[in-house]
Amino acid sequence: MSCDLKKIPLPPAWKQKAEEVKSVDVAPGKGTREGTECQQLLASTSRLLSPAPCLLGPEGQSCFLLWFPRTGFAIRVPAQARAVLRLVLGVPHVCLSCLGTPLLAHTLWLATSVLAALGMLAEPHFKRRPGVWKMLMAAMCVALLSGLQAQDLPRQVSIILLGATGDLARKYLWQGLFHLYLEEVGKGHHFRFHGTALTSTEQGQEVIAKVLESLSCPGDMALGHCAELKAQFQQLSEYRQLKTPEDYLALSKDIEAQVEHEGLRETGRIFYLSVPPFAYVDIARNINSSCRPGPGAWLRVVLEKPFGHDLHSAQQLATELGSFFQEEEMYRVDHYLGKQVVAQILPFRDQNRAALDGLWNRHHVERVEIVMKETLDAEGRTSFYEEYGVIRDVLQNHLTEVLTLVAMELPVNVSSPESVLQHKLQAFQALRSLQRHSAVLGQYQAYSGQVRRELQKPDSFHSLTPTFAGILVHIDNLRWEGVPFILMSGKALDERVSYMRILFKNQAFCVQSEKHWVAAQSRCLPRQIIFYIGHGELGSPAVLVSRNLFQPALPSASWKEVEGRPGLHLFGLPLSDYYAYSPVREQDAYSLLISHIFHCRKDSFVTTENLLASWVFWTPLLDSLAHEVPRFYPGGAENGQLLDFEFSGGHLSFSQPLPEQLVPGPDSAPLPSDFQVLRAKYRESPLISAWPEELIARLAGDIEAAAVRAVRRFGKFHLALSGGSSPVALFQQLATGHYSFPWAHTHLWLVDERCVPLWDPESNFQGLQTHLLQHVRVPHYNVHPMPVHRRQRLCAEEDQGAQAYAEEISALVTNGSFDLVLLGMGTDGHTASLFPQSPAGLDGEQLVVLTTSPSSPHRRMSLSLPLINRARKVAVLVMGRMKREIAMLVSRVGRDPKKWPISGVLPDSGQLVWYMDYDAFLG
Amino acid sequence: MSCDLKKIPLPPAWKQKAEEVKSVDVAPGKGTREGTECQQLLASTSRLLSPAPCLLGPEGQSCFLLWFPRTGFAIRVPAQARAVLRLVLGVPHVCLSCLGTPLLAHTLWLATSVLAALGMLAEPHFKRRPGVWKMLMAAMCVALLSGLQAQDLPRQVSIILLGATGDLARKYLWQGLFHLYLEEVGKGHHFRFHGTALTSTEQGQEVIAKVLESLSCPGDMALGHCAELKAQFQQLSEYRQLKTPEDYLALSKDIEAQVEHEGLRETGRIFYLSVPPFAYVDIARNINSSCRPGPGAWLRVVLEKPFGHDLHSAQQLATELGSFFQEEEMYRVDHYLGKQVVAQILPFRDQNRAALDGLWNRHHVERVEIVMKETLDAEGRTSFYEEYGVIRDVLQNHLTEVLTLVAMELPVNVSSPESVLQHKLQAFQALRSLQRHSAVLGQYQAYSGQVRRELQKPDSFHSLTPTFAGILVHIDNLRWEGVPFILMSGKALDERVSYMRILFKNQAFCVQSEKHWVAAQSRCLPRQIIFYIGHGELGSPAVLVSRNLFQPALPSASWKEVEGRPGLHLFGLPLSDYYAYSPVREQDAYSLLISHIFHCRKDSFVTTENLLASWVFWTPLLDSLAHEVPRFYPGGAENGQLLDFEFSGGHLSFSQPLPEQLVPGPDSAPLPSDFQVLRAKYRESPLISAWPEELIARLAGDIEAAAVRAVRRFGKFHLALSGGSSPVALFQQLATGHYSFPWAHTHLWLVDERCVPLWDPESNFQGLQTHLLQHVRVPHYNVHPMPVHRRQRLCAEEDQGAQAYAEEISALVTNGSFDLVLLGMGTDGHTASLFPQSPAGLDGEQLVVLTTSPSSPHRRMSLSLPLINRARKVAVLVMGRMKREIAMLVSRVGRDPKKWPISGVLPDSGQLVWYMDYDAFLG
Repeated sequence: MSCDLKKIPLPPAWKQKAEEVKSVDVAPGKGTREGTECQQLLASTSRLLSPAPCLLGPEGQSCFLLWFPRTGFAIRVPAQARAVLRLVLGVPHVCLSCLGTPLLAHTLWLATSVLAALGMLAEPHFKRRPGVWKMLMAAMCVALLSGLQAQDLPRQVSIILLGATGDLARKYLWQGLFHLYLEEVGKGHHFRFHGTALTSTEQGQEVIAKVLESLSCPGDMALGHCAELKAQFQQLSEYRQLKTPEDYLALSKDIEAQVEHEGLRETGRIFYLSVPPFAYVDIARNINSSCRPGPGAWLRVVLEKPFGHDLHSAQQLATELGSFFQEEEMYRVDHYLGKQVVAQILPFRDQNRAALDGLWNRHHVERVEIVMKETLDAEGRTSFYEEYGVIRDVLQNHLTEVLTLVAMELPVNVSSPESVLQHKLQAFQALRSLQRHSAVLGQYQAYSGQVRRELQKPDSFHSLTPTFAGILVHIDNLRWEGVPFILMSGKALDERVSYMRILFKNQAFCVQSEKHWVAAQSRCLPRQIIFYIGHGELGSPAVLVSRNLFQPALPSASWKEVEGRPGLHLFGLPLSDYYAYSPVREQDAYSLLISHIFHCRKDSFVTTENLLASWVFWTPLLDSLAHEVPRFYPGGAENGQLLDFEFSGGHLSFSQPLPEQLVPGPDSAPLPSDFQVLRAKYRESPLISAWPEELIARLAGDIEAAAVRAVRRFGKFHLALSGGSSPVALFQQLATGHYSFPWAHTHLWLVDERCVPLWDPESNFQGLQTHLLQHVRVPHYNVHPMPVHRRQRLCAEEDQGAQAYAEEISALVTNGSFDLVLLGMGTDGHTASLFPQSPAGLDGEQLVVLTTSPSSPHRRMSLSLPLINRARKVAVLVMGRMKREIAMLVSRVGRDPKKWPISGVLPDSGQLVWYMDYDAFLG
Repeated sequence: MSCDLKKIPLPPAWKQKAEEVKSVDVAPGKGTREGTECQQLLASTSRLLSPAPCLLGPEGQSCFLLWFPRTGFAIRVPAQARAVLRLVLGVPHVCLSCLGTPLLAHTLWLATSVLAALGMLAEPHFKRRPGVWKMLMAAMCVALLSGLQAQDLPRQVSIILLGATGDLARKYLWQGLFHLYLEEVGKGHHFRFHGTALTSTEQGQEVIAKVLESLSCPGDMALGHCAELKAQFQQLSEYRQLKTPEDYLALSKDIEAQVEHEGLRETGRIFYLSVPPFAYVDIARNINSSCRPGPGAWLRVVLEKPFGHDLHSAQQLATELGSFFQEEEMYRVDHYLGKQVVAQILPFRDQNRAALDGLWNRHHVERVEIVMKETLDAEGRTSFYEEYGVIRDVLQNHLTEVLTLVAMELPVNVSSPESVLQHKLQAFQALRSLQRHSAVLGQYQAYSGQVRRELQKPDSFHSLTPTFAGILVHIDNLRWEGVPFILMSGKALDERVSYMRILFKNQAFCVQSEKHWVAAQSRCLPRQIIFYIGHGELGSPAVLVSRNLFQPALPSASWKEVEGRPGLHLFGLPLSDYYAYSPVREQDAYSLLISHIFHCRKDSFVTTENLLASWVFWTPLLDSLAHEVPRFYPGGAENGQLLDFEFSGGHLSFSQPLPEQLVPGPDSAPLPSDFQVLRAKYRESPLISAWPEELIARLAGDIEAAAVRAVRRFGKFHLALSGGSSPVALFQQLATGHYSFPWAHTHLWLVDERCVPLWDPESNFQGLQTHLLQHVRVPHYNVHPMPVHRRQRLCAEEDQGAQAYAEEISALVTNGSFDLVLLGMGTDGHTASLFPQSPAGLDGEQLVVLTTSPSSPHRRMSLSLPLINRARKVAVLVMGRMKREIAMLVSRVGRDPKKWPISGVLPDSGQLVWYMDYDAFLG
């Protein structure tokens, strides 16, 4: 159970730095002070040592983390260290990282020393080894002393705001910086604020001067004091143009000179990039090469979204930034994480564990709504908006962050950024992939005109960019399976409001007539928890919990009960039906985040991993929606029910049929209902052709009919299924729509299989399991995966997997005649795993054969053509434009299975039916 | 595809009668008339031929049913007959059964002839065989003629009402008979009504005279006409004492004499038994032996509930009645089936198929409530009530009938009693068994006092009979899985109302602020369908459908829109938010049912099969609740929230904790929470002892913890489970409560297995599948059933199943050390399938062995003791009073596995923990 310190994974950057300081040895005796003396020292300085480092990690583990908030990194130490640190430092509140105020090298040096000492302590009986104990004390005290020495000089933090004359800066960021100054001044830090932009110095100074003049203090501050501090802040703020590498170098030199001139020591620099994303890389390069602070001072670079346009561009940007900055140096802002109510979600879940433990799951939650409605439209911002649209602007980031905060498993320690991140990433992994039908899109009518005007587009231009989106998210784990998470955002809607709402199922029956129901008691009235992020009828952020649910615990220092507002109804209930709390002091998101940057609370920011996980989730949907025509809406209250949407079987659709189209889309595709299902012949067998959705519905219906017939006649139904992507939609259709399907009497066989373990994502069986088996109740013993993996080997001839499968078929399937075999057709004319120019399985006595595919994985197992042709019915499903060419070709050729194995499919006495979608059939 | 007529299952009674008439041959030519002539004949008599016989059965089947409404039976004929019957009889409306008005023998004779003829037609080409054609025509016409001849005499039906002076008779039945008379008089039937009872003739006549005087006509009948018909009815009604067999004989003779005297022909007799159930058998015997009508006339015996007290008594009663009457002669009344709204459920589902098809399932239905609330209490009826209680009085019959009408798959033809019955029985089969926790029980406070008073019980007497029950029913099929069906009924509640309500899930998101939602359009307002059976605020029966759902089709002749009632809210919405229909003419249930008896509409009555299926469902619950102390409630509006209940994980419980008990129960059991979980030692290993529920929760928690630990360390968790009944609760607990259980990384093994096919209900695997596998997502390839059934043989030594399982274990489980093995302990000290006095598997090298059990099925497969003892952890679960003795014994003995195999369980290096409930441990 010991913790091998050598195996502790350090980030590469650390390793390098750790090596740089490895010559610093801790010689016992050198600089040693007695333990008590050291403790006194610590005690006397402890007010400097804040925020405190935290011990993170579940109890009982062999390793845990010691987190240094000020630097934002953590070290892993063995369990014994917990006791040691408590012993040495008296209480867990005493801070290590703050020692160096924190000079990174010092902290690392300290960490190295502690690690070395503790590594020896891992031989657990340190009490029997007073030498080791002494050495540890020495290490600690040396570290403390050197840290404290460095504190002799007053410290300065420089904050450089890039894009200082822009919208965001003028509206929020300067105010946030002022707020930081108000909070931190007099706590031992000097500040300098450098507003920069591409604007000329003169113009910039003018803008900045105005902004600085408009800054405001908190309501509870005396006017005179405010004026004084504001004057100080103005004094400490400057504007300068920042364009060329030389400008950056000059800035750096000026800071250094000023620091030296004033007898200060530079603690760190914050670069806040409030600039368009295309400027990031250049700026990053300049900062890295010309404007890093000197050794021992930290660098923090703050980035504003958008962080890419899709997974690829996000990855690219992340890689580029990663070549200039360490992960721990980057602070990606999602300002939603600075909203007080959003920031409260995890603490709320943590502080109300007892009440929520039983409730926070699919058995109790009916739905989760994550909503951001705006009344404004995109006018004046279309150059940005046209490129991004509502999903990239709001859903991919803000609403997704809220989603993960709700959905993630709750870490034991919610203030550990590392475990929060880990759990968030797990939540991302559990998200079911979004399909085209997971979304409804809208665009307010005036949008295209605004784009034409602002971007000088021709009159013929119509934008497809959505300004409204509703998305249905499902989470495939035991906690959330089946619970709809609805994400919705739009511009030009009827009201401005943001909230996350958890509606609980009504799992009560109230015996007495509803007239008598009392809000606080009746379990039959709606029960909900609402994180009211802001605006709306309530007008302020709040956390609301239905009174018939439980009385929540919120930190009373920062949250107060909302005062009554007669007549105000929220989500169907009067305000008085809720326990409602709002922040004692409302704080702007940016002020909060700027403070968190300063205090290096990295859990309020988006890490690279988190960002990419979000793009992994959203990008396929964005791709599939790229040419979708949004529904047009008039905007405001006039939208009526036009944008209401509903879900069924995992699909979203607008509740109301499309009214006369307000603005025609450029190339609206024909609707499935415009066409009849075509019945015709293909290769002299019946052909059913339709749009994909209808085709799948038809095929599923035919399979169910065959199943019902077979079970009625024979008591069972033998169905052999192919793998691949086309059947997935079929599996989903069968899984969700067919209540009378006799699954209990159905045997499932595989038509073919790849020689990979069954749990490999490439395995055909895995697809069958994920999309069908998990959703219906086929008895275990009626499921017959192909034995491609016997004795830990894949398709070894000597394991006789093919023979074993043939025997299983012979034993259970009368005459080897499957009731239905579902096949596909490859672009090379292959079917099952019978490939052109490869004779195995095309004729002969063998029922099941091993074959070779031209594409990887090459080894396959397949039903043979003669066995397939014994079936009572064979259905061939061919879908997609890719199949058009082969479909055309195969329609013309004779029976030549060696060239085109599919051409050999013709049941001896059964029926063959082709199911082709229009893309494949009509091209 | 031909329909083998010999195989048509006829009821035994028919067979006998069919044989009696088999000598009646159809000789071609004899009595033949030309087809057209015969058709003319039919046409001229067709107004007599009503109700028409119906062709039942799905199109395209090889057989279908020809149903004779008047006699209530059907014959199966091959598909060809359909065409033939249409051809011969012109239209399907022409009636066969009505020919004989219907003399059963005649109809049977006809049926036999038709069958014989059609049997030959089954050689399909009847057009090429004019001889056959002629013969068929002959058979038909002979049948018709003989039938018509019998019609020459005017017909009489005698109705004998037993218990004619009782409550039900006075309140409903006489009125129902009068109603029948009003409807049928002048349609060709004469009637006589014989009120009978044990009461002396004089007293009885007095009562009856009063009742007859109070009869009323429908509101739309002219007063004079009413008086006239009422006088006629009084004239035709008499009272007589009916006690002894001689009385029955005399009645029969009197009827015969009267019929003959008046020149009538007796068509049939209806005996309506409105008597306590203990009198049934005697009466039945008397009717059968002394009062059956003469040959050619039918007998119908109407029975009122209760039909037994539990499954056993219901079966007994059914057997006894079956020895006197044919199934088709019995009419069991459930008066709910005569409620107009209840009778409308199936027709409604049928007529609104298009709208309901997509909605009537678990994806859309949130819950179904079936409710009958009464304000009255049981005062004056306690002698009955004390024996039956609310479940037997209301739920087992009325509410269950409604339940099946909602839940059943909708037959293609909803007016076919046979397929309705079939589908009902299927619905019964899909009902999940009720557990003790599926119910909450209550008793109004005054009840015990009333019982003491009315039944002369001592003051110390406290009744446990429930007067209130809430039941949670789940249906385990794809359509309804997870949808709660709530059945509730009680006396002394706050209002009188009965309804069935289907609440649909809100699967919409309404974008605009809820202030703007409009009832008919917003999918976010509640959507429901309510079958308002009666009373309540609406005051009349009605079918209600939310306007935002769809506009239902109801037969406009018999249903009209309900008029607006401003201010009236039903189920949370104003009446105006519903499409609401009520019957054009409200009809009492008994009137309707009496008319249905006369017209032999057997689908309105409870068949023996249906009745027994209901008892099969309810009896185990009734047994398990026998000693349950109900919650006491004050009655009326004062009940407040006291009776509200809620469900979670399939369990029902009252929402509010028990207030101070109002009347103490006689022997209220201690509550689990009264005790702490005991920790102690048993056989020198840790013992965990608690009440069953807590014990199971604890064990499940420990298993999850072990799983999480194992998966963290090794990436997988190997769990070996025992079969039997104790683990079922554990499986259910694991299936519903443990969201973080790493099922995807768990391997499930069997500790032992019976040598039966895996799909046998006796198979341990089957239990595991039903209670656990179906509810969690263990990958198929991680489930390892024991190979007891190889090559279609059970545990044949030469199939080497045990060796194969051992190999599988060796291949996947490191060192053969399961992470956790769950064992039980038999009353003989066996564990796994290792039995006393049977050496196999107790030592040696074999990992898996075949063993012999003293109880059937004798052959078993089992993990060996050495393999079990390799486990990291072994949990032994021992529950129930039955285990007390062996638990005591085993606590004292040493290691002697040959005598007590359980004593050999002691992991080599793993941990052993005993989980015993207090019943087993403390006795």
